Amino acid sequence: MIDLHLVGIGTGNPDHLTRAAIRALNGADLILLPRKGTEKADLADLRRQICDAVLERPVRVVEFDLPRRASDRPYLGAVAEWHDAIAQCWCAAVDAHMPQGGHVALMVWGDPSLYDSSLRIAERLGAAGLPLRTHVVPGITSLQVLTAAHAIPLNRLGAPVTITTGRRLRDGGWPDGVQTLAVMLDSGGAFEVLKPDGLHIWWGAYVGMAEEVLIAGALGDVAAEIVETRARLRAAHGWIMDIYLLQRFD
Amino acid sequence: MIDLHLVGIGTGNPDHLTRAAIRALNGADLILLPRKGTEKADLADLRRQICDAVLERPVRVVEFDLPRRASDRPYLGAVAEWHDAIAQCWCAAVDAHMPQGGHVALMVWGDPSLYDSSLRIAERLGAAGLPLRTHVVPGITSLQVLTAAHAIPLNRLGAPVTITTGRRLRDGGWPDGVQTLAVMLDSGGAFEVLKPDGLHIWWGAYVGMAEEVLIAGALGDVAAEIVETRARLRAAHGWIMDIYLLQRFD
Repeated sequence: MIDLHLVGIGTGNPDHLTRAAIRALNGADLILLPRKGTEKADLADLRRQICDAVLERPVRVVEFDLPRRASDRPYLGAVAEWHDAIAQCWCAAVDAHMPQGGHVALMVWGDPSLYDSSLRIAERLGAAGLPLRTHVVPGITSLQVLTAAHAIPLNRLGAPVTITTGRRLRDGGWPDGVQTLAVMLDSGGAFEVLKPDGLHIWWGAYVGMAEEVLIAGALGDVAAEIVETRARLRAAHGWIMDIYLLQRFD
Repeated sequence: MIDLHLVGIGTGNPDHLTRAAIRALNGADLILLPRKGTEKADLADLRRQICDAVLERPVRVVEFDLPRRASDRPYLGAVAEWHDAIAQCWCAAVDAHMPQGGHVALMVWGDPSLYDSSLRIAERLGAAGLPLRTHVVPGITSLQVLTAAHAIPLNRLGAPVTITTGRRLRDGGWPDGVQTLAVMLDSGGAFEVLKPDGLHIWWGAYVGMAEEVLIAGALGDVAAEIVETRARLRAAHGWIMDIYLLQRFD
């Protein structure tokens, strides 16, 4: 039997980890650290630093190379194939390093429930007949760190909130009837498709980290500054994680 | 100068606290614990238990009585008055127990950004001229604990999510164009206004606590069971906190 612990770790700051996350990592027989290639080496390094910060006993930590997602095919099909390939990587790593079964932990950016593929990959392992129990430890999302950094509520009083992706915003524009829109996974400047009148933005990159940069204001006033800042930071650090919240004031 | 720390604590389990939350509580000169009257005494008791679990040094903990929200007036106006009254309670408590200023911490269920009034109340203190710096420490929300307990993603692959309130669902029905809807603050069974065809529900009460109860299934199959279970649990415990996720499959 394999007990798979998907452990939400927040946005890279060890202080984002909960007591439950720290316990799950310390209780693991094996921690798997994915590597996505050199330009994202920082992210694997961050996970290693988090292990160093919170492990209270020696736990075996094994790195493995993640396959890349095909970028020349329709999005959903390419993602499904990519998840299949990652599932095979997990299997191979568990077979190689924990053949008798036990507790394996994966550290997940943010929370395993929100725009993360780990639960879908775990489902593939179960469907493939692996004797698997999946445990989820919630983690602080970048959206929560963003609103905390700006010291703002996510929702207006008693009002709904929509969370979407940069891809959806770029392709579909502002969703009907929405006042508050959080945008994640934007590869850059999807908000430029919007008419900025009446829109306010709260943006952040590397939220919760020493490198954190925040910009807020009327979208028309700060959109260009955000696009320029994002490009500059990405070039400087070699990678970027950013997120923003938009509100419509009519 | 007063440094106000709004510390997200999750849903009542000390293991939901992050390292940042634990540090903020231990660094406080004063922790204010609101009491809402006897029938919700459990909640103040839970906060006390969390203090006992995570405080590593003696920190002054002071309880104060929260005013009640008027239930005989329009919702938004009543809430605004209620927030004014709570702001006065905070001021009085700080004046009485920390007249020289310092660090005061308030423990907030879930995350201070999501359907919580603390940031709006803090804004009132600032507007009233109190020399105040507000710091927000994100916390695990009941929505995250719910999806973790059911081991499900919140969003479908690359798709948006809407978070709303029981009041909105009851008054407005299913929002147009939405597939995934998380419902918080429901005083009970708002989903009964929906035609259940094609809807699936994942429900939880006391999520993340020893008392946790989970129900999931086609809405038509489990709606009555959820309503009955919720009423029974509320009677047994004297209070209830529950939450649910709905997905439409067309």
